Amino acid sequence: MTERVYNFSAGPAVLPLPVLEKAQAELLALPGVGSSVMEISHRSKQFTAIIEKAEANFRKLLAIPENYQVLFLQGGAQMQFAMTAMNLLAGTGGSADYVVTGTWGKKAMGTAKTQGTVRAAFDASSTNFNRVPTADELELDPAAKYVHITSNETIQGVQFPSEPYFGDAPLICDCSSDLLSRPLPIDKYGIIYACAQKNIGPAGVTVVIIRDELVEASNDGLAPMLSYKEMAAAKSLYNTPPTFAIYMVQMVTDLLISEYGSLEAMEELGKKKSALLYDVIDASGGFYIGHAEKTSRSIMNVPFRMEDPEMDALFIKEAGEAGLTALKGHRSVGGMRASIYNAMSVEGVEALKQFMVDFQAKHG
Amino acid sequence: MTERVYNFSAGPAVLPLPVLEKAQAELLALPGVGSSVMEISHRSKQFTAIIEKAEANFRKLLAIPENYQVLFLQGGAQMQFAMTAMNLLAGTGGSADYVVTGTWGKKAMGTAKTQGTVRAAFDASSTNFNRVPTADELELDPAAKYVHITSNETIQGVQFPSEPYFGDAPLICDCSSDLLSRPLPIDKYGIIYACAQKNIGPAGVTVVIIRDELVEASNDGLAPMLSYKEMAAAKSLYNTPPTFAIYMVQMVTDLLISEYGSLEAMEELGKKKSALLYDVIDASGGFYIGHAEKTSRSIMNVPFRMEDPEMDALFIKEAGEAGLTALKGHRSVGGMRASIYNAMSVEGVEALKQFMVDFQAKHG
Repeated sequence: MTERVYNFSAGPAVLPLPVLEKAQAELLALPGVGSSVMEISHRSKQFTAIIEKAEANFRKLLAIPENYQVLFLQGGAQMQFAMTAMNLLAGTGGSADYVVTGTWGKKAMGTAKTQGTVRAAFDASSTNFNRVPTADELELDPAAKYVHITSNETIQGVQFPSEPYFGDAPLICDCSSDLLSRPLPIDKYGIIYACAQKNIGPAGVTVVIIRDELVEASNDGLAPMLSYKEMAAAKSLYNTPPTFAIYMVQMVTDLLISEYGSLEAMEELGKKKSALLYDVIDASGGFYIGHAEKTSRSIMNVPFRMEDPEMDALFIKEAGEAGLTALKGHRSVGGMRASIYNAMSVEGVEALKQFMVDFQAKHG
Repeated sequence: MTERVYNFSAGPAVLPLPVLEKAQAELLALPGVGSSVMEISHRSKQFTAIIEKAEANFRKLLAIPENYQVLFLQGGAQMQFAMTAMNLLAGTGGSADYVVTGTWGKKAMGTAKTQGTVRAAFDASSTNFNRVPTADELELDPAAKYVHITSNETIQGVQFPSEPYFGDAPLICDCSSDLLSRPLPIDKYGIIYACAQKNIGPAGVTVVIIRDELVEASNDGLAPMLSYKEMAAAKSLYNTPPTFAIYMVQMVTDLLISEYGSLEAMEELGKKKSALLYDVIDASGGFYIGHAEKTSRSIMNVPFRMEDPEMDALFIKEAGEAGLTALKGHRSVGGMRASIYNAMSVEGVEALKQFMVDFQAKHG
């Protein structure tokens, strides 16, 4: 048996073991094909079945209405930072609103600025991005071409608990680190996008869910690879897509459906797992310090630290020796970060919880 | 043992079996890591070693001078159709020359046209792209911002036998279907790019070899994901790259070095393999009709047909039954296409050769 650790990486993150095992079993030859999934045409009937199943799984899990396209693109969320602005802002003479609740929202706004006028409808940088805005704090431009939010800030562990009202402009959401972790009212959104390497699959594929009227409203004359119109018309097959990554996404979503049935179940599990860690932090009497305000806490990423950075380093070292890996926090926040996406088991989180309790007993 | 066929797919194409076997063995956990290569940070020391080795292998195999960057990007050759023009043509007021020897060169020019002024320095569409130009036929613009060529046209099986003189403008080459199949005098080129899914690895990663002075001459103000300056400054890690695909590229190039030693050896093998098929075509007395003119024949893709399209269909059907798959030609050329990239064994090509001989004896 292969020795696997409890891997708390923020992404590329842990994948479900049954999916890795199936990929391993089929790696030299897909059943009935005689070639690896990596070796067949993206226009073959076998791959067509894979990408269509992946799309169908997304539609089922998120109850995606028919007037939305589901695309599998390349370049990660950062390419969507560019594509959203190239398609819907550049050349319009208008402005777009960005709700900046962390590092990724800030980067999204910075990239959009290369394409047109942007403004921050909220910016929590003065408190090192530790919370989402209240409705009162939002300064929305009623004429905005769109409003961009980041549902979950991976680095700061700051998550919108639900969808506040962002006005009537199309709502664009970077859901990179929480898509498929909970149900979403899709029809409130114009575009939802997410890189795969948190809850969805391996790095190299990006899911874009886009309302038909935004495809139609997109700019003409873009290079085809950067055009929502071209990508939607070609149903993600304008050129060769990242076939292996899409195959993994199909299997991850297959498993999600067969094992958990719904995103309501995943959300329950996410709340349960994150509570295990937040409870330790809150009961530690200040030994562990959480980053996000309680009402903005993420159920996906749990950043915390101790008073003394040297203790953080000791924690990370001893945790690694105990088979709890990739717990180092991002340099902008420091300390630790436990990323507990869908594929992180309750057992893994309980092991971390126990380690935290034991570490405090030993060093506190 | 897994039953594998002889797979002549034009791409995504066959991969070396030892590479697939190593990926399979390590799929659940990289040795000493306890997680799959898909589950670790792109900034971890383990992945850093992988991407640095992949780059070092390219530098060794192609003798890439130090004043060239080797980048691993996303989006395939088609994204490079856009990036080359966005970085080096858009906003310059100048024009770029395209040498159009097949479908891909034509698409490259079409994409560049979204960004600036382009002209065809040669266009073989009137003969359905069956040859490369002679030096006399090239109508180069001495003031061109760059000259773009396609070293091997995958669909038409048309390949430049060597580098003609294309004037003094920077030479940009789409080498998608022949990079790593033969040595290249890198210093004659400004940019060489190639999607991976022919000779290099699985779909989802694109290799870009670019001279420093073209990085420096690239446009400012682009979205970072589309900027050669940003991608070169970040050494391909501006955001999460397609880590699994890069891991495969590292192993493919490792094997190339350990098994064949040099690209001179690969070129010899490619000439030998393609000659096996071209010899059958030439000796068939017109039963098999090659697409490309003899002096422009590709050693990577061998398109051929018979007089009667129904015979083509029968060939493809009977070949499939004999374990020779993915031989259907592209619709724009018709007939068959045998793609015989680096990972296609001599045994596989000999099996196809024998099948062609037997098929003619039976049906000719």
